[in-house]
Amino acid sequence: MKRISVAVLAATGMVGQRYASMLSTHPYFDLIEVTGQSSAGKRYGEAAWTGLPLSDKVRNLKVKPTEPSALSANLVFSPLPTDVAQTLEPKLAKAGFKVITDASPHRMEPDVPLMIPEVNPEHLALVELQRKKRHWDGFLVATPNCTAAGLALLLKPLHDSFRLKRVIVSTMQAVSGAGYPGVPSLDIIDNVIPYIKDEEDKVESEPRKILGSFAGSRIDSAKFQVSAMVHRVATTDGHLESIYVETEERFVPEKVEKAFRDFRAEPQKLKLPTAPKQPIIVSSAPDRPQPKLDRNAGSVPGMSVVVGRIRKGLDDRSGRMTFLSHNTVRGAAGSTILTAELMFRKGLLS
Amino acid sequence: MKRISVAVLAATGMVGQRYASMLSTHPYFDLIEVTGQSSAGKRYGEAAWTGLPLSDKVRNLKVKPTEPSALSANLVFSPLPTDVAQTLEPKLAKAGFKVITDASPHRMEPDVPLMIPEVNPEHLALVELQRKKRHWDGFLVATPNCTAAGLALLLKPLHDSFRLKRVIVSTMQAVSGAGYPGVPSLDIIDNVIPYIKDEEDKVESEPRKILGSFAGSRIDSAKFQVSAMVHRVATTDGHLESIYVETEERFVPEKVEKAFRDFRAEPQKLKLPTAPKQPIIVSSAPDRPQPKLDRNAGSVPGMSVVVGRIRKGLDDRSGRMTFLSHNTVRGAAGSTILTAELMFRKGLLS
Amino acid sequence: MKRISVAVLAATGMVGQRYASMLSTHPYFDLIEVTGQSSAGKRYGEAAWTGLPLSDKVRNLKVKPTEPSALSANLVFSPLPTDVAQTLEPKLAKAGFKVITDASPHRMEPDVPLMIPEVNPEHLALVELQRKKRHWDGFLVATPNCTAAGLALLLKPLHDSFRLKRVIVSTMQAVSGAGYPGVPSLDIIDNVIPYIKDEEDKVESEPRKILGSFAGSRIDSAKFQVSAMVHRVATTDGHLESIYVETEERFVPEKVEKAFRDFRAEPQKLKLPTAPKQPIIVSSAPDRPQPKLDRNAGSVPGMSVVVGRIRKGLDDRSGRMTFLSHNTVRGAAGSTILTAELMFRKGLLS
Amino acid sequence: MKRISVAVLAATGMVGQRYASMLSTHPYFDLIEVTGQSSAGKRYGEAAWTGLPLSDKVRNLKVKPTEPSALSANLVFSPLPTDVAQTLEPKLAKAGFKVITDASPHRMEPDVPLMIPEVNPEHLALVELQRKKRHWDGFLVATPNCTAAGLALLLKPLHDSFRLKRVIVSTMQAVSGAGYPGVPSLDIIDNVIPYIKDEEDKVESEPRKILGSFAGSRIDSAKFQVSAMVHRVATTDGHLESIYVETEERFVPEKVEKAFRDFRAEPQKLKLPTAPKQPIIVSSAPDRPQPKLDRNAGSVPGMSVVVGRIRKGLDDRSGRMTFLSHNTVRGAAGSTILTAELMFRKGLLS
Repeated sequence: MKRISVAVLAATGMVGQRYASMLSTHPYFDLIEVTGQSSAGKRYGEAAWTGLPLSDKVRNLKVKPTEPSALSANLVFSPLPTDVAQTLEPKLAKAGFKVITDASPHRMEPDVPLMIPEVNPEHLALVELQRKKRHWDGFLVATPNCTAAGLALLLKPLHDSFRLKRVIVSTMQAVSGAGYPGVPSLDIIDNVIPYIKDEEDKVESEPRKILGSFAGSRIDSAKFQVSAMVHRVATTDGHLESIYVETEERFVPEKVEKAFRDFRAEPQKLKLPTAPKQPIIVSSAPDRPQPKLDRNAGSVPGMSVVVGRIRKGLDDRSGRMTFLSHNTVRGAAGSTILTAELMFRKGLLS
Repeated sequence: MKRISVAVLAATGMVGQRYASMLSTHPYFDLIEVTGQSSAGKRYGEAAWTGLPLSDKVRNLKVKPTEPSALSANLVFSPLPTDVAQTLEPKLAKAGFKVITDASPHRMEPDVPLMIPEVNPEHLALVELQRKKRHWDGFLVATPNCTAAGLALLLKPLHDSFRLKRVIVSTMQAVSGAGYPGVPSLDIIDNVIPYIKDEEDKVESEPRKILGSFAGSRIDSAKFQVSAMVHRVATTDGHLESIYVETEERFVPEKVEKAFRDFRAEPQKLKLPTAPKQPIIVSSAPDRPQPKLDRNAGSVPGMSVVVGRIRKGLDDRSGRMTFLSHNTVRGAAGSTILTAELMFRKGLLS
Repeated sequence: MKRISVAVLAATGMVGQRYASMLSTHPYFDLIEVTGQSSAGKRYGEAAWTGLPLSDKVRNLKVKPTEPSALSANLVFSPLPTDVAQTLEPKLAKAGFKVITDASPHRMEPDVPLMIPEVNPEHLALVELQRKKRHWDGFLVATPNCTAAGLALLLKPLHDSFRLKRVIVSTMQAVSGAGYPGVPSLDIIDNVIPYIKDEEDKVESEPRKILGSFAGSRIDSAKFQVSAMVHRVATTDGHLESIYVETEERFVPEKVEKAFRDFRAEPQKLKLPTAPKQPIIVSSAPDRPQPKLDRNAGSVPGMSVVVGRIRKGLDDRSGRMTFLSHNTVRGAAGSTILTAELMFRKGLLS
Repeated sequence: MKRISVAVLAATGMVGQRYASMLSTHPYFDLIEVTGQSSAGKRYGEAAWTGLPLSDKVRNLKVKPTEPSALSANLVFSPLPTDVAQTLEPKLAKAGFKVITDASPHRMEPDVPLMIPEVNPEHLALVELQRKKRHWDGFLVATPNCTAAGLALLLKPLHDSFRLKRVIVSTMQAVSGAGYPGVPSLDIIDNVIPYIKDEEDKVESEPRKILGSFAGSRIDSAKFQVSAMVHRVATTDGHLESIYVETEERFVPEKVEKAFRDFRAEPQKLKLPTAPKQPIIVSSAPDRPQPKLDRNAGSVPGMSVVVGRIRKGLDDRSGRMTFLSHNTVRGAAGSTILTAELMFRKGLLS
């Protein structure tokens, strides 16, 4: 199997380093280029600072400037900052690059698939429509917001089996979600901040697109409603969420647990390298999941989400649960790489 | 005005020290006795360790054992541990002591008033019924759970003006709520724990009793439902809560804000020493309240609760808000002292 | 007594807000101007964010740009960033402003007094020399680095009574010392950073100037040596230091304690408003001082330093102790205001 | 090679779980027994709570009570609490068990080797003397205090090449060093505690025994002096230390670095399974080591110590450095297992 050459943009940022580490040795992808702003020209091993493991080859890559002319890779992973992504990503796609992005600007555009490979693999068919419509040689595929990504995965079997009406979620999010330097320590020591700019909008809209139905030419958003109240807490990695749902079917905790445990999807069937064997792990402990103990759960660390404290709500058609997903793995680099793997196996990258 | 002699039980615990500090100089109450377990015999100033300010007189009190025979005060404040409170408090009340307690065992007993002085001053009439029924010379009055106490205060004007149907609350609670030694640091550094033993039951039941109507002989619980999901976070003081409510009336944020801002009650009218001028402070900042910045809000530090981010919910008859109350002041010692002040002024302590 | 009009530069920074709070009501000084960068034009009450108490008058000041032409106050407090202070402060002094600064660029210049009022009040005589030499109408007086400030105060009675030879100090410094936004939370949660740019140089050199002797025309540095190893830890306020000293006289812990306890200086004699009654508080507890419990020690909160665990060292002429000082009060705004008070009373501000 | 059966006492404690994880698959040792107090009777997988990886076999062990009669293993690892270890360990050794302990009570007894395998492998000869003198079938070998263990390793090449005279150390220790529940979160959030019971004595005495010379019948302590000032900070794992040394030879940083880098010892020569390839890693970054980034350094995670910021001291024969070692790996379970591996290869376990 011939590997495909890939680049990671903004590779010296926090999510960028997660990519570089996960791609250090990869059976489908050959990481040949990393880009950065202030560190262009340095060896990547010197520019990286998170301590995540890197192969010697990746460590020795020279950081390039983030410019289309500097790139030769076939596939480009983009955890670019919002403002840069806004204009640069379409430019890259137009220039023929296959771009999969964690950035937010293009996620809700109707012809951009917003992917969680276990949830909506069929949305990838949008790519062909996008290319035609935009006259692009390349394409643009998006990964959801770090909170929405994990949430959409959890909601998939719930919606399939119990039909969601409302989802009321309160989050406790890790500081790594704000990138680096991100949250000042003075703001978060002995504190909680009940606000993250633009985050609630994303959590309320993106899952509905991801779980939407693809009718051949466009995505019809799922009908349920989401209310999000987001909070930043003093954890490094792992977004914790308390979730209250209203469903059309009766919410029977044992049945819900079973739906979660039994959930498998195309990435598992294809045994994609970054696909966890069990996407949703159910904990029966009364005090789990916890960010420190559970964020690296799963056969591919950080790619499984963990749910616990599954209980009935205030009536028979509502329920409650506590939920954790790793924000820079399942919520960013990991899901994006999984999307790329799925596209690779479906022949969409050649 | 003659001051009444008071005792603080378990005075060397965390809430106990809060009492001792707030009672160090008090116009109605003269703190003459403090009790403790392992520190009996020591000077109180040596046994206390939180650094809260104490008067020299209080500092020099000798710690007594927690036994009825050791006590001579008229009024007894009891932040005793649950198991001790269970049996000791009725014994004290029977022996003629007037007892106001933060402990949980007797809160939900039908003839025990569960007090937030701004919310249900009329429930104090239960005291007379209790004494008759139980043939007690003293009495037992209770303060709610530290989370329920602040919440009930917030819900009062909301219920009065908009008629609550459902309250869905997700909490982020400070470690001081677990007392001392309480939460091990290994459990909470870089972590959130989505579980506090028995806490959710209390938060779901107590506010309904507090906001219940007193029909002359018994309290009829308020009809709304509460769902609580509780979490321990790495803050020292101040419980933060994200709240989603469903109301019978239309939830108009401006009207809700006004109802909060305008709320005044009997403690304010009587200008009780521990009554904050404004019980509910509304913040219009997009990122407030925050535990570190707002826990000592109010003209009496820690006695005002703070609410912000008041927004509409998923339909016209629902809303959302972020809420903070100081768990050891408004949620314990402060509310109890305020209850005592109200009883003093109503002649119920003589 | 006529009050003197004062301005605070960079008043929206962390130390700037400390000034504004401490000057909100002051018997000698009338705060009439605050300056800021991005917030120029706003009401100060809106630009401030630390939650420190402010008078209504100060809250209503309009933030001015940080430019000489915008200022009319007689005395200027300057917690400017290093690079701005470098050129702006001499310009202000030349233009006739009396400037007292927390910034570092001019601290070690031979004709700039580096003041801790309890330690070297006689150094203020340099001001007259400075004015003559530089042909300035105003002047420039400096406050030491936040770590050096507290340390110099502690070392004063030690050097006077026991003659210091060497001071080996290892610090554990609060994140507020880095200003705002300062230390990223990702760097400090579950971590210690053994490095603060340029800090060790300052801690090693400044105390020697402060404790130097003033021979009429210049300061001769004190002869002892200082070794500093500095660390950033996850505390908000209060720098903790472990100190090992070598002395010419025998180090007798009881005598050292007595020297600390008995230490009083000119600010105490003059009863300056910001002077703590006891500059150095000695704790006899085995586990004190602690940042959380002791940073606000003293009759003027944060102006007293606290020392504990005073023990002999590896021989008779060495000793050890643990030391705490509040880095933004005693280490910045508080000491600077105290210097201004001393100058006011000595007639140096008129 | 026949594996030796081993037991871990107090296996449900924090260090105990570290043992169980490191012994889950081991080429020399077969973990057949785990003991615990309150969890006796449970499956070990249920009693363990740190989330460290465990083999299925270990997970399925039934927890036994901590009693000699319950044990059948040849070799016993003992991270028992001090008071239990005091009497139980000699009893076990007398009963024929080979005991290697992390507990403190017997460390300084003259015939008990206090082992860091890279430092003093020759001290193991004491075992034979011990057995004769005490008429024991088994034996007792000790691992140093968690801070002293790493420090002794670092000092070995320094003492060999530069002859130590004095070591002045200030520590910043992780909360895991206090076991579980250990340090209350209320004590450590936004705080540093400058005290750990009995710790300074251990850090001052144990390295001198470990680096002592073995003259055939007894250990003569090394002649240098140690001053220790210890502090607890809000980190989970990894003790950081700032170290000032005085040496008889000139302290030349480049030579010191080389001595550290080149240091190898018997465990490396024998390629023991738990021996890191490079025991002492030198960092040249200006801000390293840091607990979060460096605690798992080395080819066997946590078994290498990391030193950085190596600089001259106040004269030519003194120096400074910042040092990190993993307190529950190199400072406890890891060093003990390494000692056992060395004894196994020397035939001392058969």
